[in-house]
Amino acid sequence: MASKISASAGPALTVTEDGSALDDLYKDLTREHLAPLWTQVGELMPGQPTPSAHPHVWQWKTLFELAERAGDLVRVERGGERRAIALANPGLGSLPFATPTLWAAIQYLAPGETAPEHRHTQNAFRFVVEGQGVWTVVDGDPVSMQRGDLLLTPGWHFHGHQNVGDVPMAWLDGLDIPFVQQTDSGFFAYGSNTLTDTSTPDRSRAERLWGHPGLQPVALLSARRSSPLAAYRWQHTDRALAEQLEIEREGQPATLGTGHAAVRFSNPTTGGDVMPTIRAEFHRLRAGAVSEPRREVGSSVWQVFAGSGSVSISGIKHLLDRGDLFVVPSWAEYQLTSGDGDGLDLFRFSDAPIFEALGLYRIQVGRQ
Amino acid sequence: MASKISASAGPALTVTEDGSALDDLYKDLTREHLAPLWTQVGELMPGQPTPSAHPHVWQWKTLFELAERAGDLVRVERGGERRAIALANPGLGSLPFATPTLWAAIQYLAPGETAPEHRHTQNAFRFVVEGQGVWTVVDGDPVSMQRGDLLLTPGWHFHGHQNVGDVPMAWLDGLDIPFVQQTDSGFFAYGSNTLTDTSTPDRSRAERLWGHPGLQPVALLSARRSSPLAAYRWQHTDRALAEQLEIEREGQPATLGTGHAAVRFSNPTTGGDVMPTIRAEFHRLRAGAVSEPRREVGSSVWQVFAGSGSVSISGIKHLLDRGDLFVVPSWAEYQLTSGDGDGLDLFRFSDAPIFEALGLYRIQVGRQ
Amino acid sequence: MASKISASAGPALTVTEDGSALDDLYKDLTREHLAPLWTQVGELMPGQPTPSAHPHVWQWKTLFELAERAGDLVRVERGGERRAIALANPGLGSLPFATPTLWAAIQYLAPGETAPEHRHTQNAFRFVVEGQGVWTVVDGDPVSMQRGDLLLTPGWHFHGHQNVGDVPMAWLDGLDIPFVQQTDSGFFAYGSNTLTDTSTPDRSRAERLWGHPGLQPVALLSARRSSPLAAYRWQHTDRALAEQLEIEREGQPATLGTGHAAVRFSNPTTGGDVMPTIRAEFHRLRAGAVSEPRREVGSSVWQVFAGSGSVSISGIKHLLDRGDLFVVPSWAEYQLTSGDGDGLDLFRFSDAPIFEALGLYRIQVGRQ
Amino acid sequence: MASKISASAGPALTVTEDGSALDDLYKDLTREHLAPLWTQVGELMPGQPTPSAHPHVWQWKTLFELAERAGDLVRVERGGERRAIALANPGLGSLPFATPTLWAAIQYLAPGETAPEHRHTQNAFRFVVEGQGVWTVVDGDPVSMQRGDLLLTPGWHFHGHQNVGDVPMAWLDGLDIPFVQQTDSGFFAYGSNTLTDTSTPDRSRAERLWGHPGLQPVALLSARRSSPLAAYRWQHTDRALAEQLEIEREGQPATLGTGHAAVRFSNPTTGGDVMPTIRAEFHRLRAGAVSEPRREVGSSVWQVFAGSGSVSISGIKHLLDRGDLFVVPSWAEYQLTSGDGDGLDLFRFSDAPIFEALGLYRIQVGRQ
Repeated sequence: MASKISASAGPALTVTEDGSALDDLYKDLTREHLAPLWTQVGELMPGQPTPSAHPHVWQWKTLFELAERAGDLVRVERGGERRAIALANPGLGSLPFATPTLWAAIQYLAPGETAPEHRHTQNAFRFVVEGQGVWTVVDGDPVSMQRGDLLLTPGWHFHGHQNVGDVPMAWLDGLDIPFVQQTDSGFFAYGSNTLTDTSTPDRSRAERLWGHPGLQPVALLSARRSSPLAAYRWQHTDRALAEQLEIEREGQPATLGTGHAAVRFSNPTTGGDVMPTIRAEFHRLRAGAVSEPRREVGSSVWQVFAGSGSVSISGIKHLLDRGDLFVVPSWAEYQLTSGDGDGLDLFRFSDAPIFEALGLYRIQVGRQ
Repeated sequence: MASKISASAGPALTVTEDGSALDDLYKDLTREHLAPLWTQVGELMPGQPTPSAHPHVWQWKTLFELAERAGDLVRVERGGERRAIALANPGLGSLPFATPTLWAAIQYLAPGETAPEHRHTQNAFRFVVEGQGVWTVVDGDPVSMQRGDLLLTPGWHFHGHQNVGDVPMAWLDGLDIPFVQQTDSGFFAYGSNTLTDTSTPDRSRAERLWGHPGLQPVALLSARRSSPLAAYRWQHTDRALAEQLEIEREGQPATLGTGHAAVRFSNPTTGGDVMPTIRAEFHRLRAGAVSEPRREVGSSVWQVFAGSGSVSISGIKHLLDRGDLFVVPSWAEYQLTSGDGDGLDLFRFSDAPIFEALGLYRIQVGRQ
Repeated sequence: MASKISASAGPALTVTEDGSALDDLYKDLTREHLAPLWTQVGELMPGQPTPSAHPHVWQWKTLFELAERAGDLVRVERGGERRAIALANPGLGSLPFATPTLWAAIQYLAPGETAPEHRHTQNAFRFVVEGQGVWTVVDGDPVSMQRGDLLLTPGWHFHGHQNVGDVPMAWLDGLDIPFVQQTDSGFFAYGSNTLTDTSTPDRSRAERLWGHPGLQPVALLSARRSSPLAAYRWQHTDRALAEQLEIEREGQPATLGTGHAAVRFSNPTTGGDVMPTIRAEFHRLRAGAVSEPRREVGSSVWQVFAGSGSVSISGIKHLLDRGDLFVVPSWAEYQLTSGDGDGLDLFRFSDAPIFEALGLYRIQVGRQ
Repeated sequence: MASKISASAGPALTVTEDGSALDDLYKDLTREHLAPLWTQVGELMPGQPTPSAHPHVWQWKTLFELAERAGDLVRVERGGERRAIALANPGLGSLPFATPTLWAAIQYLAPGETAPEHRHTQNAFRFVVEGQGVWTVVDGDPVSMQRGDLLLTPGWHFHGHQNVGDVPMAWLDGLDIPFVQQTDSGFFAYGSNTLTDTSTPDRSRAERLWGHPGLQPVALLSARRSSPLAAYRWQHTDRALAEQLEIEREGQPATLGTGHAAVRFSNPTTGGDVMPTIRAEFHRLRAGAVSEPRREVGSSVWQVFAGSGSVSISGIKHLLDRGDLFVVPSWAEYQLTSGDGDGLDLFRFSDAPIFEALGLYRIQVGRQ
């Protein structure tokens, strides 16, 4: 006689014989490295994304102090490679992953220290919330690092760092380590133990070749997967944002929403994202501005660059201060609110290019 | 005094003070949802892919018998949705995933049964190793399923199935469920509980519109993310493979290697893969032929369609017979050998389009 | 005192001094190889295209008789290369050009004749309205030519022809000669005086490799500028058109307009046009059907393949019979009407890919 | 008896009957608007491009004086539209075309004058060799014009100009008028008789939105056929060229050839050319430098911006001075030589994007 099987075996499956036959079947499936779909289809294919990653805020002050302690205790050497401390999302078990696809870490380098050169297929960038004195050498090109700058290390480019200043420096590292690890697509190779170029020019060769608006060197033309522009400087980002808000005031289209300016860092050889798996943007909210609520397929990590305010994620409000980092999981609704003081400046990176490339991207703006 | 920390904490880090300070640091990191890179960089960024998924062979005979038992015990209904039994890779814990990105299952439908309509962002296909009598209805277009056919259900297309024959039918389902689940990018919606079109034409409208070599309907032109051709019929696949081997005999380039013909199923509107995350191919080895050793970023699932032989994966040889399914993990070297009888015909699907789209694809042909 | 200059010098220019000073200026401009814009801006930049090419119909009977006479009088040899007679549009002076961009000619080859091999950057095709017995050899691959077939010779492919039948054969040649000549972009080279392969297989290697719907040979994959499929056979074209009309009868979208089926010949490696400068299509009107009026940027040449009817171009009606060729200039409105007998089948080629690639394409369907 | 026909009727055709029958055939062909290929294949399809356009140099001094005279005699008004004097290539009959595809003109606007707004599918730009005081208004955005600037007016953008300075200003206009006219693809429409915005800001909104290196406004993102950056300023061009020469001195790759820097103006949303039919570049030769000889499919127009030197085209040397314009026809070899003084700065535009898009582009560097 037919009877409904238990809820744990799925809501609508009917056992036509008896429960023990079904139990035997499930045991035999397990033994043969097989698994039924019907008992877990709802988990495997939910109506909309149900991310394990949690919304979470990490405070810069805490991060920096822990990085300082690591600076005292741990040497930067070949093998450990980098003194980097990763955000470990509370929803992702003990994995050192900010989201299922993105890695975010604070890296700390003391005066006189050198991080040895290596390369990997993982795409990487650095974003500087404070400090100076470090040069990162990308495929032999020394690139200075200053507050507000975005520095790229696209996949398979050799890179190392040195701190030539008087004080330690810490910055944000962003990579696609979780995505690459999960999909078994990563390669890694050691390079020089010392830096291949220890000079400390103000501007990298990459900037001198590619950093002129709308201009490309004829000798080096080609569509490249990743941006050849190793550094996106704060002065340009700041000005672009300020002008969007000015143009908004003049009554012309420029901003993403009222009082909400945003620029995307782009690859000048294609107009696309800076790297194939990582999108990088900078957002500025005028004092008192509130962004439209938004949800997107894919996850992102944000860092407060200046000002203060709050973010509401999936209905929970989190206060934000300079340097704070937070994660927005896939399809979670989020809304930014700028404090009443100087407005709110945020750097953001996400995995959106992955989903756009594969036809899986969706975005919803406004509440529905 | 400085001392090397334990191997478990990384090969080359130096504690400058004492071990207990470091222990305190690690505890504090954990409490703050943080994790050091230096203790696990080797695991996170290995020199080359170190997949958890194992090479493994599932025998068709075993699969089919278990599916028959499920046919007796479990009804196909809304909620459970499908009587599908998934390959659960022994290296991936208890997850019902063939590889970290790919789902492969045997689906079984008895005479008179209907699998209700639904849609999801996950891309899906069916491949038929034996049997007939089932029509799958894709966005209202009934598509017959016969031995050797590849049938597509690209993301967000409604689909259901019915068996109008006298005997049960089982086939291979392939999807990107693990990739979509891992990246939190899936949406799912129920459709009609009954089929929207229960007619059983020999050829689908999709084939009648798009199944003419090199011809496109002017009224429906556009570049589409997924192939509009719902069915790739065996007669065409078989002929294309036979002609490659004939042209090889005539001394002209056609085959992938000596005695090794291969076709890729493609999207006629772009020339690219049939779906954004899944590559589908058919391979034929002449009797006695041996393929070149090959390793690729990304994983694949193969099914023996006809003949017999063996596959060597990462140096281990596995015998193969009709219907057998096997998995090749990322970057594992594999080599196919056809038996001396009738040759070896294999269907294959992989996640290569993901890596090609993101600049992460690598392939190595021959031993190095 | 100011006075309007003559109409021939432009509608709205004002001479501020006196006419003779202006005459002197114009003389001096001419002497210095210069020309004023203001006197001719209306001609140079009209409100919409004002083509010099005329709509015109050439009757197949007349073309064929003249080709036969040329067959008696002129030998096919190296130097003259081809016994081809080109449509010379009455609006284009004495140039042998069907339109400003397209060449269309009847080519005639008697039994036993060989047209020697050569290659050129100009893209070419043949379309066969009647006859058989000729093989065209494209980069060493012999391709048979039969009624209804489209045969491609993309730019810089060697090609020659032989007639191995008992009777002369004539067919339509289409090329982009005028475009290439006008833009000084053509290269030409002689090949073998005899054919590199005189065999006469039913199917070319190109068809055996690329002529399977949605299938591509893995060994030869790449996106190519031109279609690798040398022959598009009538049986496929005919069937695709018949099925569109059937699907229309079933109430599903398939046709370009009521009773008006149309297929585009496409490049299976990209889904785009068969060649970068030439679009090829086949249109079928059910008996009594009338197409929607249409105007497009770019010119086209049509040939009646079967049936009879009429075309109205820029308001003038032209009767059409089997084999007749006609030209539709850029932006001229045209409308096809099928006779009451067997319907109307037409082959068409155009230069639309040029304008689509350069952002200059426009189309208007219906009367406005 | 067979006899060779005359050379003028082709090199290798054989009359099999007698000359009068052939004469009759040719007469009948002409009457029926037909033309034989065999008598003109060499002209129609030469071994390599045989452009009608000549290499030619126009001196700026002459151009400017004639423009001044036109300024006295001709008013800028609706109808005549622009006081522009076009280069009329001596090889192209009396047509006002610099090359078969490109228009180049000097445009002259006196203080207080306004050129009324209009738009056309033809793509246009302005390049400023001297002067200031003019604003061009592109789709409502006022753009200042200064020495060394490149200003874009892509197809179908409204545009007009005003001179708010004290002295007349003249500049170079470049368009694709000949190409569009020859292919019957142009549309034109009048806009406002007065300027839609008479303000004179230093920087246009386009620059404020798009003129930051590697940054794009998130609110306006999309791949556009033409660059949204209306102005490419001299300070950026100059700096980019100077840095290429510096990097060359440092021993790193940067320049097109020894002592020869070159930048391409690009569309930041695609990385491609600024407009679909026009490439724009700036070249700088260090004092005494000589460029490699080069030939390319497609034609180009150059203007000396600063310095002096010479260009050799098809073996003929032409001296060059500030402001001089010259034309390089398709496939003509050219080589630039800088004078011994301050080097040689040149602006250049060409039709290369047309040929690249259509698979017809070729380039040869060095002598062969």
